[in-house]
Amino acid sequence: MNRKQSARFSNEWTMSEQKTTQESNRGDQRIEAQYWIETAFPLEQASATMAGEQSTGTFLRVPGETDKLRELYAARVESIEEQEVAVKPSLPGSGVPKNWDGVRRTAKVTLSWPLHNIGPSLPNLLATVAGNLSELKAFSGLKLLDVKLPAAFLEVYQGPQFGVAGTRKFTGVYDRPLIGTIIKPSLGMSPEDTAEQVRILAEAGIDFIKDDELQTDGPHCPFEKRVAAVLGTLNRHFERTGKRVMYAANITGEIDQMLDRHDHVLAHAGTCVMVSMNSIGLPAMKVLRRHSQLVIHGHRNGWGMLGRSPAIGMSFVAFQKLWRVAGIDHTHVNGLRNKFCEADDSVIASARACLTPMFEPPASGCEIMPVFSSGQSARQAPDTYAALGSDDLIYACGGGILGHPMGVAAGVRSLQQAWEAAALNIPLENYAASRPELKSALESFGA
Amino acid sequence: MNRKQSARFSNEWTMSEQKTTQESNRGDQRIEAQYWIETAFPLEQASATMAGEQSTGTFLRVPGETDKLRELYAARVESIEEQEVAVKPSLPGSGVPKNWDGVRRTAKVTLSWPLHNIGPSLPNLLATVAGNLSELKAFSGLKLLDVKLPAAFLEVYQGPQFGVAGTRKFTGVYDRPLIGTIIKPSLGMSPEDTAEQVRILAEAGIDFIKDDELQTDGPHCPFEKRVAAVLGTLNRHFERTGKRVMYAANITGEIDQMLDRHDHVLAHAGTCVMVSMNSIGLPAMKVLRRHSQLVIHGHRNGWGMLGRSPAIGMSFVAFQKLWRVAGIDHTHVNGLRNKFCEADDSVIASARACLTPMFEPPASGCEIMPVFSSGQSARQAPDTYAALGSDDLIYACGGGILGHPMGVAAGVRSLQQAWEAAALNIPLENYAASRPELKSALESFGA
Repeated sequence: MNRKQSARFSNEWTMSEQKTTQESNRGDQRIEAQYWIETAFPLEQASATMAGEQSTGTFLRVPGETDKLRELYAARVESIEEQEVAVKPSLPGSGVPKNWDGVRRTAKVTLSWPLHNIGPSLPNLLATVAGNLSELKAFSGLKLLDVKLPAAFLEVYQGPQFGVAGTRKFTGVYDRPLIGTIIKPSLGMSPEDTAEQVRILAEAGIDFIKDDELQTDGPHCPFEKRVAAVLGTLNRHFERTGKRVMYAANITGEIDQMLDRHDHVLAHAGTCVMVSMNSIGLPAMKVLRRHSQLVIHGHRNGWGMLGRSPAIGMSFVAFQKLWRVAGIDHTHVNGLRNKFCEADDSVIASARACLTPMFEPPASGCEIMPVFSSGQSARQAPDTYAALGSDDLIYACGGGILGHPMGVAAGVRSLQQAWEAAALNIPLENYAASRPELKSALESFGA
Repeated sequence: MNRKQSARFSNEWTMSEQKTTQESNRGDQRIEAQYWIETAFPLEQASATMAGEQSTGTFLRVPGETDKLRELYAARVESIEEQEVAVKPSLPGSGVPKNWDGVRRTAKVTLSWPLHNIGPSLPNLLATVAGNLSELKAFSGLKLLDVKLPAAFLEVYQGPQFGVAGTRKFTGVYDRPLIGTIIKPSLGMSPEDTAEQVRILAEAGIDFIKDDELQTDGPHCPFEKRVAAVLGTLNRHFERTGKRVMYAANITGEIDQMLDRHDHVLAHAGTCVMVSMNSIGLPAMKVLRRHSQLVIHGHRNGWGMLGRSPAIGMSFVAFQKLWRVAGIDHTHVNGLRNKFCEADDSVIASARACLTPMFEPPASGCEIMPVFSSGQSARQAPDTYAALGSDDLIYACGGGILGHPMGVAAGVRSLQQAWEAAALNIPLENYAASRPELKSALESFGA
């Protein structure tokens, strides 16, 4: 990274005081965040507490806190939509008002801030829309559901470089999902073992292969050797067949390591790198995106810590927006009837969000490719297609491919057949009648 | 940042295959993580699921997963300590076994991994000890409570540069806590207004002043102008009085911005920079620590998202260890009877953890200074001292200083008096009898 050059980009955004004052009330110059809250306090009061804590407030009125200051910088409560009453507090540690009416209310609340409070800075955005809010005593539940950002963020961040169209172009797969898989076991195979598994998968017709998030650069499978072996195999496959399989090499690590690993993948004619988003943070992502010539596969492992509880944390709909602006091209959304705990409607909401533009034209919409995975097989294809209304996705299966009774090629073929059936709106069982790979998959995988 | 130079450091750690095999079973070469779990499955089975998911497992036994591989790479269940039975699931989405006995158990479970699975890499550690665990269907609750790292991490990370001793040396404050405050209102003051508030605070005898986490580089209070104004004031104060007040300037932002801002603080004879840890991520922290010549104040805003729920996320005891290894010198622990929702025993556990060595000698113990804040006043000093058994801390008060009825100097003085009373084991009310500042504080602040 050239520091001076990079500084030039990240300091691009400036705003004069005059412009600020004029524009602070314009909707397109405000940051919005929507929350679910649960509180024993009147909803108006609770919402005002949130707005105060995250802008001009403190617990005592102090000298210097003037009305003009509040007008220019205070967060604004845009809307309060009351929902059902909570029977008991979802989280410990909350308080109740002195003359409590005994009702614990829930609501969706939208706050907004003038962009000039922080400028288009994702790290400072996090401190503003998340920050200390979850710890406020007035709330027995508080979860960030969504954010809406001014397009000015795209003056500082680059958004996805390739997204859906670029991923399709790199792989030559159109009019159906990319069929993908994860190298398994996660840990323990040598570079040569890994490349051999990749050879088998490529010959089986796979479109996309990713490292497991646990495998980066262990001494038994060093990154550089693994990537050289895997991409050597895939390059030979390309020369022989004309088909370019995308391999998401897990480069997660320190910033210098990630840039070096990116360059190594590029030097071996790779097309994709993978990072664990929660492991690296948004500033590292910005540096990687500025440097990158490859598709960036954003792995969301650890998101359960933030997103699983309905009472606290951050929805994936909000989370993925920050990372799209920072530059990922793909991200994981789990899958229908997955082996994890996420409900199907949440999976589909995440996937839809990935494909929904974040900004109005002429700015980029920052759409990215959702990656379905976790216990996926031929079984879930029709429901996934019906719920999402799109085949712009990566459909990643582990055991569903490697564990197919007729072998790996049949595993891949069964998934292609399942998506053909989905697109044709033909029931899987009917379509499987003359297709033994799909038939076998349906017999083997019950999800 | 010089990339090649930085790469040399972060790739220092290597381990031959032979060494790996010999050492993988040695306790000092294993990573440990302790969890609280809640599950309808037998505890042994549930723990084995965690270990499998985070090392060699997948949902089907696949070719290549041999016994030798398991022996070398599999996570190990070190201990299971059963606790009380849960009446109902804490989180949605969990499953139950086929022949469920109807009992939902909780336990503390410790897993361990050979260091060679990932090497001493904090980003990869996160994917390993946190990763997908929180989303596993077998659990209706799963929280990371603690981690134990091999000292090999200090071959790659630098740990705190200054810690408790360095902070005391910079400020010249010994034998009592540093009395600190936060510039308020968070947003809206000009650089000149801010410097004027700082002048008043410095003349009042304050030891430590920090920016609010919401204030970084807004157009009305640009970072460089604010820092120049504030540090100019503090430098004049130093020349006049010989007292060096520490100012934690909030440098949170992109990596290049943070390094530039660090240099700006250094150029103006500042001694401390502040970063919002959840906003920047561990790799950015590593780069900053490598570059830094200043005390790094780690602000934990956003931690509530991870830590407030007892059923999911990560305890602050675990969280702060990762950041200490990466290089922070201070971090926030909330305070007794704070305005947030955290219970007092959790506050004290966090503060104790900051002061407890992470590694055996001769490695650094990475002790750091806990920062007490949030609704703190003279009232909590004796209980804080009694519970912590140490005065190695920063005691930060907002309204408790700026809102003192007799003025700011009396606010600072009242806190010094309260800590004198605590150290002498004299009840506050008695000590206040001949000390009007403390007396007024006790009358004004009820916490």
